[in-house]
Amino acid sequence: MQFALTKGWSIMSDAKLLTAEQIQDILERVRAQTPLIQAITNNVTVNLVANAILSVGATPAMVDIPVESGIFAEIASALLINVGTPNSDQLVAAPEAAAAAHKAGTPWVLDPVAVGALPVRTALAKDLLEFKPTAIRGNASEILALAGAVASGRGVDAGDSVESSQGAAIALAQTTGAVVAVSGSSDFISDGVSHAWIDNGSDFFPRITGAGCALGGVLAAFLSVAPAFEATVAAKAVYALAGELAATRASGPASFQTLFLDELSQIDVTKHRDSLSLR
Amino acid sequence: MQFALTKGWSIMSDAKLLTAEQIQDILERVRAQTPLIQAITNNVTVNLVANAILSVGATPAMVDIPVESGIFAEIASALLINVGTPNSDQLVAAPEAAAAAHKAGTPWVLDPVAVGALPVRTALAKDLLEFKPTAIRGNASEILALAGAVASGRGVDAGDSVESSQGAAIALAQTTGAVVAVSGSSDFISDGVSHAWIDNGSDFFPRITGAGCALGGVLAAFLSVAPAFEATVAAKAVYALAGELAATRASGPASFQTLFLDELSQIDVTKHRDSLSLR
Amino acid sequence: MQFALTKGWSIMSDAKLLTAEQIQDILERVRAQTPLIQAITNNVTVNLVANAILSVGATPAMVDIPVESGIFAEIASALLINVGTPNSDQLVAAPEAAAAAHKAGTPWVLDPVAVGALPVRTALAKDLLEFKPTAIRGNASEILALAGAVASGRGVDAGDSVESSQGAAIALAQTTGAVVAVSGSSDFISDGVSHAWIDNGSDFFPRITGAGCALGGVLAAFLSVAPAFEATVAAKAVYALAGELAATRASGPASFQTLFLDELSQIDVTKHRDSLSLR
Repeated sequence: MQFALTKGWSIMSDAKLLTAEQIQDILERVRAQTPLIQAITNNVTVNLVANAILSVGATPAMVDIPVESGIFAEIASALLINVGTPNSDQLVAAPEAAAAAHKAGTPWVLDPVAVGALPVRTALAKDLLEFKPTAIRGNASEILALAGAVASGRGVDAGDSVESSQGAAIALAQTTGAVVAVSGSSDFISDGVSHAWIDNGSDFFPRITGAGCALGGVLAAFLSVAPAFEATVAAKAVYALAGELAATRASGPASFQTLFLDELSQIDVTKHRDSLSLR
Repeated sequence: MQFALTKGWSIMSDAKLLTAEQIQDILERVRAQTPLIQAITNNVTVNLVANAILSVGATPAMVDIPVESGIFAEIASALLINVGTPNSDQLVAAPEAAAAAHKAGTPWVLDPVAVGALPVRTALAKDLLEFKPTAIRGNASEILALAGAVASGRGVDAGDSVESSQGAAIALAQTTGAVVAVSGSSDFISDGVSHAWIDNGSDFFPRITGAGCALGGVLAAFLSVAPAFEATVAAKAVYALAGELAATRASGPASFQTLFLDELSQIDVTKHRDSLSLR
Repeated sequence: MQFALTKGWSIMSDAKLLTAEQIQDILERVRAQTPLIQAITNNVTVNLVANAILSVGATPAMVDIPVESGIFAEIASALLINVGTPNSDQLVAAPEAAAAAHKAGTPWVLDPVAVGALPVRTALAKDLLEFKPTAIRGNASEILALAGAVASGRGVDAGDSVESSQGAAIALAQTTGAVVAVSGSSDFISDGVSHAWIDNGSDFFPRITGAGCALGGVLAAFLSVAPAFEATVAAKAVYALAGELAATRASGPASFQTLFLDELSQIDVTKHRDSLSLR
């Protein structure tokens, strides 16, 4: 899965946007259906992931040990696999869950945290691709790395710009069949044919740990109630807009996190249609 | 341990209530004695469990690896075992600690998170019953499942009502010798002979992750300073009342959690005697 | 490594103080260089450790599994090893990372949580000393225990006073070559020749879980931009002063934690020179 990325290289795709009403409608479906979201995620931000899932109205269940993870992936509404701290149990439980999700038709999200620089998670993430994730969410460096390109990955940081990963994201979507979502100061989403940019967000997001991880959990919840591309655009838009609203009242990163989760639990996107910036 | 639960089935027991002064007295004992509370708990909410234990005036110690867990259970004032994410280490450390607690006379709490639906934790929880927990705390589905009845368990959610689990809770208390505490919109507590209902609480509790887990830690702290039934009623009453007070000022689930822990650290139950609702 | 500690025993060393400008200068270097801080730490407070590292302007990466931990310790700006919950993976990953850090010249912090009372972590911490930590941070009981003296350790609590551990801290610094930092109501720092006391801080610190752990992460960040003794004094001074400022507006331990992280993200020590208390 190597991509010849050269300067000036680009892959054509069409912008496909959602209205504030369409986004809110998907959010309302999550709130009404309270989908059951399984997460196999890192121990650093697992609490925030669970609380973010709860804040959008879904129910989190962090079933991440062998034997149980596969059983649960069959009954879960959706699954998140985040490879941030892949301990011995998760190295077995993650492929087990991905295989079960794939077989049962459970939509699932792959979050390839720090893939590229570190061998254990990189091998795990590549193995997981076999089970056809519904969506892949990462920063530019991670998407470039997963796409096989040379990235300047340095852990969870995004050393590369979202723009520089656009081609790799589109190619990765085409190769894997997943919707690929790249997080950064602007977010890019592609299903290989259509794409969308979201310019909403907040500078506070990279100043708390787990903003990307929690988005992965929220994305899983949205995937359980809507088609993949629409769900991904809606999840990212709701998330970014809630962050933008929270930032106006925050006095630092920790108060931002509290305000953000509160905002996420009650946001009405249609009331902020003028702030919404999709292209 | 099967219970023949049929519609209209009931087990008679007597209501046994505590006054606001009695509850506050038990809380004051925790604050004065700063008991050392060991917790073997899930990695999702472990931080909240530790902070809740600190907020009532006790000292948490999350000693959850083999070899150390048994040694510590002998010297701890009380022990919590929560089977929410039973990793390889905890699968060994939990029975080791329970056995040591049982032998040393250390009171201990079993929190059977998501027992019923998932085989590893279900087997673990049943094995742990052998070491005679002082108290068992769960939601209705978990108590029904642990009692061997058919429950509509779907992870950490309570699909069953507290009322529907009342008979199973009483029977479980009689079979195991533990005080059984069922959490829900109202809480039910039974030692097999006496019972109490607590109607205090907040709708915010199920909207944060770990409200039940943290109650398990607080319960362990209370068990180290008072008889089991009284300690359980007092722990639940303090916890529910603090939540009720916090909810009046919360603007969402995350601010609720902050306000709740602050409230828990300074609550005086006797000042809120009119709000207290035990029956 | 036994120390004959008798009453009235003391080791002579000289006070060496930093000005508010010198402390702020080291903090500014962290903010400008955004060092990459690896942490192998306990699962109780890992989120707070990561957010504290972010709050001072550094980038956290909790790479704590075998194979990856050693690779990462070579490229990280600094490393924290906290032995609070040493699971099976960390028991392998921690020595691997310490060895790699030692070989690559990566500065690293050892936080010997609850060493003394518990055998697995005690053996681990002693083994890690072989790889020459740049700094050792703990409470009085832990420093006494690590120094081989008899301490009244009871888990993460500090049963001994900072004053009583002063001699052991100096001796431990002389034996290991590390800067030793003892946390308490006043903090003591020694490199075996010079020392400093910091009287700033807040009673809220011991009322949240992980205040010491998070200081370990912040200390690692500071060690990556300044000489060890100066970095340790600066890290502790910034941390304690931010806590002091946060405490003035906190209504309990949870709101304190939020205010503290916000404060840490924007503090200017030179604006609070009159509050700074070093001796």
